[in-house]
Amino acid sequence: ESRLPLYATHQVGVAGAVLDETNGKVLVVQDKNKTKNAWKFPGGLSDPGENIGDTAVREVLEETGVRSEFQSLLSVRQQHNHPGAFGMSDLYLICRMRPLSFHIEFCTQECLRCEWIDLEELARTGHTTPITSRVSRLLLHGLMHGFQHIDLGMEVLPAVYSGMFYQLYHRPLPMGDSTSPNV
Amino acid sequence: ESRLPLYATHQVGVAGAVLDETNGKVLVVQDKNKTKNAWKFPGGLSDPGENIGDTAVREVLEETGVRSEFQSLLSVRQQHNHPGAFGMSDLYLICRMRPLSFHIEFCTQECLRCEWIDLEELARTGHTTPITSRVSRLLLHGLMHGFQHIDLGMEVLPAVYSGMFYQLYHRPLPMGDSTSPNV
Repeated sequence: ESRLPLYATHQVGVAGAVLDETNGKVLVVQDKNKTKNAWKFPGGLSDPGENIGDTAVREVLEETGVRSEFQSLLSVRQQHNHPGAFGMSDLYLICRMRPLSFHIEFCTQECLRCEWIDLEELARTGHTTPITSRVSRLLLHGLMHGFQHIDLGMEVLPAVYSGMFYQLYHRPLPMGDSTSPNV
Repeated sequence: ESRLPLYATHQVGVAGAVLDETNGKVLVVQDKNKTKNAWKFPGGLSDPGENIGDTAVREVLEETGVRSEFQSLLSVRQQHNHPGAFGMSDLYLICRMRPLSFHIEFCTQECLRCEWIDLEELARTGHTTPITSRVSRLLLHGLMHGFQHIDLGMEVLPAVYSGMFYQLYHRPLPMGDSTSPNV
């Protein structure tokens, strides 16, 4: 499923939308230098060889001090030629995360503010980016009607020849189908 | 939503699952040199700056001679260190496509065979790759119960500062919500 010559064309960024389902609050940051006064989900670039969910866990922890675990993939954004990317393209993946801790101790080098705010407020406010606003509405729908409506589950499958493994994300198949991802 | 230093770590591949909804047949190929006797969806690497859906359209046409149009994103696979990738990682995206033509004229340099086969047969056979099998079951579920259960819709949104645009993929929000992707 890949052909020579192989070359990397994309950087991969991952954001974690950490939602506390008990009170409907979600963890957001404001950048220190970019997109001022705009609430966003914490996130950043994947390290080489790092899985999407692991990047989300790491970036959320580094930026906010909050520990979290991967739940699902919610959204994929592809952007070309964005400023500073030197002709490369950018794939940005937003994950739904569950908090494992709640105390904020945010990175003052990267962030101006960090808060748990009401998901409803985030879905309403103009003080955010279009993608954050969209995903907050998606999360609100999930919180109200069930995350099965918005999630892509993840499963680890073996590669055909290499003996290695890959992560596959897709909509869950219905229960009773043994191929359903474990979400 | 990205930080310096920027570097490309991933190649991006795209496959197109072209489904004829009128007869339940799907377009598959067998590689000439790899994964012999395994039916797969046509696909290949994105060119620099190329959108996911455009790669699917191009690769399907190049490999099979069939014209198609993008419908939705179905699945994302992340794989690290796979053979020949020289330490890079691979993101592979599978799209649902609608056929615009049906006559096969496949690329004999790349493919050994190319056929329209019953989706049910593809979902059952052992002569395929794990990812193709999984996605064929997903497609079968969509064909029987509605593609809204399996699709990620795509929408073009403006970037905050650059004045450019990006493609955002996520589950459709319910009707009546003006932010719903146009799927």
